[in-house]
Amino acid sequence: MSIGIVSPQLMHFPEPLPLKNGTALADYVLMYETYGTLNADKSNAVLVCHALNASHHVAGVYQDDPDNVGWWDNMVGPGKSLDTDKFFVIGVNNLGSCFGSTGPMHTNPATGKPYGASFPVVTVEDWVNAQARLADRLGIAQFAAVMGGSLGGMQALAWSIMYPDCLRHCVVIASTPKLSAQNIAFNDVARQAILTDPDYHGGDFYAHGVVPKNGLRVARMVGHITYLSDDDMAEKFGRDLRSGEYQFGYGVDFEIESYLRYQGDKFSTYFDANTYLLITKALDYFDPARDFGGDLSKALAGTKAQFLLASFTTDWRFSPERSRELVQALVSNKRRVSYAEIDAPHGHDAFLLDDARYMTLLREYYQRVWAEIAMEESA
Amino acid sequence: MSIGIVSPQLMHFPEPLPLKNGTALADYVLMYETYGTLNADKSNAVLVCHALNASHHVAGVYQDDPDNVGWWDNMVGPGKSLDTDKFFVIGVNNLGSCFGSTGPMHTNPATGKPYGASFPVVTVEDWVNAQARLADRLGIAQFAAVMGGSLGGMQALAWSIMYPDCLRHCVVIASTPKLSAQNIAFNDVARQAILTDPDYHGGDFYAHGVVPKNGLRVARMVGHITYLSDDDMAEKFGRDLRSGEYQFGYGVDFEIESYLRYQGDKFSTYFDANTYLLITKALDYFDPARDFGGDLSKALAGTKAQFLLASFTTDWRFSPERSRELVQALVSNKRRVSYAEIDAPHGHDAFLLDDARYMTLLREYYQRVWAEIAMEESA
Repeated sequence: MSIGIVSPQLMHFPEPLPLKNGTALADYVLMYETYGTLNADKSNAVLVCHALNASHHVAGVYQDDPDNVGWWDNMVGPGKSLDTDKFFVIGVNNLGSCFGSTGPMHTNPATGKPYGASFPVVTVEDWVNAQARLADRLGIAQFAAVMGGSLGGMQALAWSIMYPDCLRHCVVIASTPKLSAQNIAFNDVARQAILTDPDYHGGDFYAHGVVPKNGLRVARMVGHITYLSDDDMAEKFGRDLRSGEYQFGYGVDFEIESYLRYQGDKFSTYFDANTYLLITKALDYFDPARDFGGDLSKALAGTKAQFLLASFTTDWRFSPERSRELVQALVSNKRRVSYAEIDAPHGHDAFLLDDARYMTLLREYYQRVWAEIAMEESA
Repeated sequence: MSIGIVSPQLMHFPEPLPLKNGTALADYVLMYETYGTLNADKSNAVLVCHALNASHHVAGVYQDDPDNVGWWDNMVGPGKSLDTDKFFVIGVNNLGSCFGSTGPMHTNPATGKPYGASFPVVTVEDWVNAQARLADRLGIAQFAAVMGGSLGGMQALAWSIMYPDCLRHCVVIASTPKLSAQNIAFNDVARQAILTDPDYHGGDFYAHGVVPKNGLRVARMVGHITYLSDDDMAEKFGRDLRSGEYQFGYGVDFEIESYLRYQGDKFSTYFDANTYLLITKALDYFDPARDFGGDLSKALAGTKAQFLLASFTTDWRFSPERSRELVQALVSNKRRVSYAEIDAPHGHDAFLLDDARYMTLLREYYQRVWAEIAMEESA
């Protein structure tokens, strides 16, 4: 059952947020949504962290926009794997994103103009600090779990390192402890497409009444290829031709071209170019082992949470091998870790899709989390 | 030993060349180079076909440009795997390319203006027909071998199908009988980057005195990622930072960014955008099984050559699996096939690089080809 109509909320933070780049964000807002009910001892809260192009809108729909279904609605809701009849679930739009929290489109109070490209390049750790302040304001001292897929999984992992006492469980899906050179390379292609689009105007395109549509479109197309598996693309599109014949021109020949261009066009109408740039940087920069001479095991030495990790066999963006690295580093610290490698054909995108084994894995894990909470409540 | 100074030659073809798109090229020139000496019975000629961004300049250097070494100079030369002391080797710049043969930059005799985007979208089969006419003019009725890597391998394969009596051996390296949806997707990203660059001007950028540099740059960057293996990129660049610290901006942080942008910049200064578009289309369209209901075995039924196929374990652009498909289809036709899967770390680019096992494989194969020729000569 879907959770139905939901409403986003805005919280204002007047205290400056120190950032990893050495500056601070003087004043900011966070857009967030909550589902379910916080219990009396505030022990049933689960924070769901979002990936590149998602938002605080994790589940449900809006009264005035019934087609806008939350990005993890299949996972989060009454009776679902993350059951909102039991848990109080929070989704937060990250700083620098373009769905309501303070970001490049917002007015910089210091200049009276939009931040544009001058918005600080925020990091996963900065987001986690901002999320922690939100938790404080909601009176949540410890999350039952912090959870995310892909970039969202990086945030969950950062929580376990930065605030070890503030989460009981850390759920990291289709993620990685750091990007590879190839991952960074794809991100840089996307950024270069945006940065060199004449309509980008050095990030001040808002003042020119345009958006770098062509750059965003190419960025999304190349990103999208890395979200799908080769097999899945072959299965869905193969070499199918839209008209049945080669066109001998540069319009659409193959269905895969039509699909990718459509995805690129759609994305370029709603996503902010400066946000795309800074979120890909947050991905590139994430590397908790960096402060420990590259030793991931040392980086995780202070964690206290229990971990659930999951990866997908056909995910070539963040392959199972990356999750196994994490598992090994956690096990070497004697952390309690469950790990599942799920045989699914849908590549990186699998973490967003329905798959019986995947959904069951999460359902059973959260039943265990719930049992712990219930036991403590009754104790 | 390098073959030393070489000179390109130009041949004019006044007879119209019928093309697969239904039109014809009225009049054209082919730029080509030859190395070694054609023997008396003209049985020692080897045609080397080039891939996307290469040319007729296979080996040696030019008198006035001693740094411009041929793209397969490590393979072709006196005493090398393809030994020019024995074989007469020919490299031909394909139609539509931008290194001397008739292409988009050339004047369309019908309009008196550069072809630009109106240059016909030529195919692998069209190239083979043009190469066959060149062979006729050189008096070569049968090649000892036709050979190529990647897109060049597709041409060699097409030779074996279209002109089965005109080659004794077909050498197909790091190639595929057809592109996958993912391959096409990457090509379309590259094309969209070029087509949407305002400096492309619908293909008539020559008249505007500009080139769509940004589009070409992104196209090359994305292409280049697919030429390298993930492991190789990790080994060469990893997460190395140019300055040792994160910059928190959109300049260069990682060495891999610096490398890719440099490759993109360099490429955009010498490669023609219209050529990039049409050569990627030739790649996408190649699919000899298409006329046989997708049955590759049937497509190869008329072939008579002996085959050498080679693939590289870390090539994820045209993986060993694609070569194995070809091997199976040839074996089902009872063709004589040698196949090697070479364990090399360099991804698709491995076909251009030195590797002892690879070079030995080719050396021994050409020794066998040479032994056959010598036996017939003495017979």
